[in-house]
Amino acid sequence: MTRNIKLKIEYDGTDFSGWQKQPKLRTVQGEIEDKLKRILQEKITLIGSGRTDVGVHALEQVANFKTESELNLTSMHRGLNSLLPEDIFVKDVEEVDSDFNSRYGAKSRVYRYRICLGKNIFMRRYSWEVPYCLDLSKIKKTTKIILGRQDFTSFCVSKSAKPDNHCFIFRAGWKKDGKRLDFEIEADRFLHTMVRSLVGTLIDAGRGYFSLKDFINILKAKDHKKAGLTAPAKGLYLVKVNY
Amino acid sequence: MTRNIKLKIEYDGTDFSGWQKQPKLRTVQGEIEDKLKRILQEKITLIGSGRTDVGVHALEQVANFKTESELNLTSMHRGLNSLLPEDIFVKDVEEVDSDFNSRYGAKSRVYRYRICLGKNIFMRRYSWEVPYCLDLSKIKKTTKIILGRQDFTSFCVSKSAKPDNHCFIFRAGWKKDGKRLDFEIEADRFLHTMVRSLVGTLIDAGRGYFSLKDFINILKAKDHKKAGLTAPAKGLYLVKVNY
Repeated sequence: MTRNIKLKIEYDGTDFSGWQKQPKLRTVQGEIEDKLKRILQEKITLIGSGRTDVGVHALEQVANFKTESELNLTSMHRGLNSLLPEDIFVKDVEEVDSDFNSRYGAKSRVYRYRICLGKNIFMRRYSWEVPYCLDLSKIKKTTKIILGRQDFTSFCVSKSAKPDNHCFIFRAGWKKDGKRLDFEIEADRFLHTMVRSLVGTLIDAGRGYFSLKDFINILKAKDHKKAGLTAPAKGLYLVKVNY
Repeated sequence: MTRNIKLKIEYDGTDFSGWQKQPKLRTVQGEIEDKLKRILQEKITLIGSGRTDVGVHALEQVANFKTESELNLTSMHRGLNSLLPEDIFVKDVEEVDSDFNSRYGAKSRVYRYRICLGKNIFMRRYSWEVPYCLDLSKIKKTTKIILGRQDFTSFCVSKSAKPDNHCFIFRAGWKKDGKRLDFEIEADRFLHTMVRSLVGTLIDAGRGYFSLKDFINILKAKDHKKAGLTAPAKGLYLVKVNY
């Protein structure tokens, strides 16, 4: 009988060429499919909730696969974590309904972007170092503009035109703890490099390069050339996928 | 005129063969001396407050050196940080009295040992993963035994006999924050691998391998073979040197 298995996966994206399998490149999907093949003795195709780019991390990526194997979940879980490299960790293995699909079933995704206000060499792989003076209350005020259903073409780096660039932002906010500044955002979908483009542009606003009105105009322009900086991948984490 | 320059240095010890310069090995002292030579155009000998082992980190190592150069401190500071690799950062450069010596002038040193209670792949280079159940109140009670002036031969890994293995522990305590467990200790001096041996043995006590009385007997034995586990280097940080 065919079983549908759901995985929750944590990974440090630093040394991966992103999530998606690509020939000759070290990818998260490639590594996990390879280990599953060894454990289950059959070719496995992993469906991820979405791709993460080169250098982007995940606290809880979700993926599923179909298998004919009857191996119990505990053995599968232990086998995976003993074979996987130290920068991937499978947090959970679960059997789900045959119609569950990690990608199409996702109702919302949560991303976090981590900024270090000043130098911290221990966070250099895991955050964006921003040594500039920032007007955090202005950043917070500007962030409110992106809430709700809007066209985010201006914050989409990809050149490939999509039929619809609307996303519904359920929440987006900032939290400061000492020198650590975190941005967290939840939406029904995200366009390519959207969180990094939003964060970079909001930080530009906080540095005084954009006013609140400028930011509104950038959003209205539906043109990525109007947006500010794109924040580096190393500060971005896929936090959770909700179904 | 000869000047005496004091540096405060942060480093990620993961990819270094420790602090002390050694031929053909990548060491923190070696890297900084090399860059100082390029900046000051003279051979520099750096005196560190103490050696840190392979893999041990520093939040604020202190070192000093003598120079004939008249280069101003700001240029020296900027020059160093622009030439040094991303895993070393010079926090401060200061001119001090000619008799200041980083090593012999130190009155106390503070070390921190970081434990992760469970899996955290983002902390894998910077903490010791302890997935076992621990009796933290027992660990805290046992830790009180090491306070004050005592002979720590049992917690000294080095084979080289020293004339005196007494250290004065000013404070030693544990702090838990979620899955993070930190041990902080301040003493007038530390023997070789002493913090890691103390932490490993205290964690063994917390796992039920040693009673409070066992721990007292280990300390009294003055024999390293009686001690428990030596915790791995990657969780250890030199936090501060007081003068």
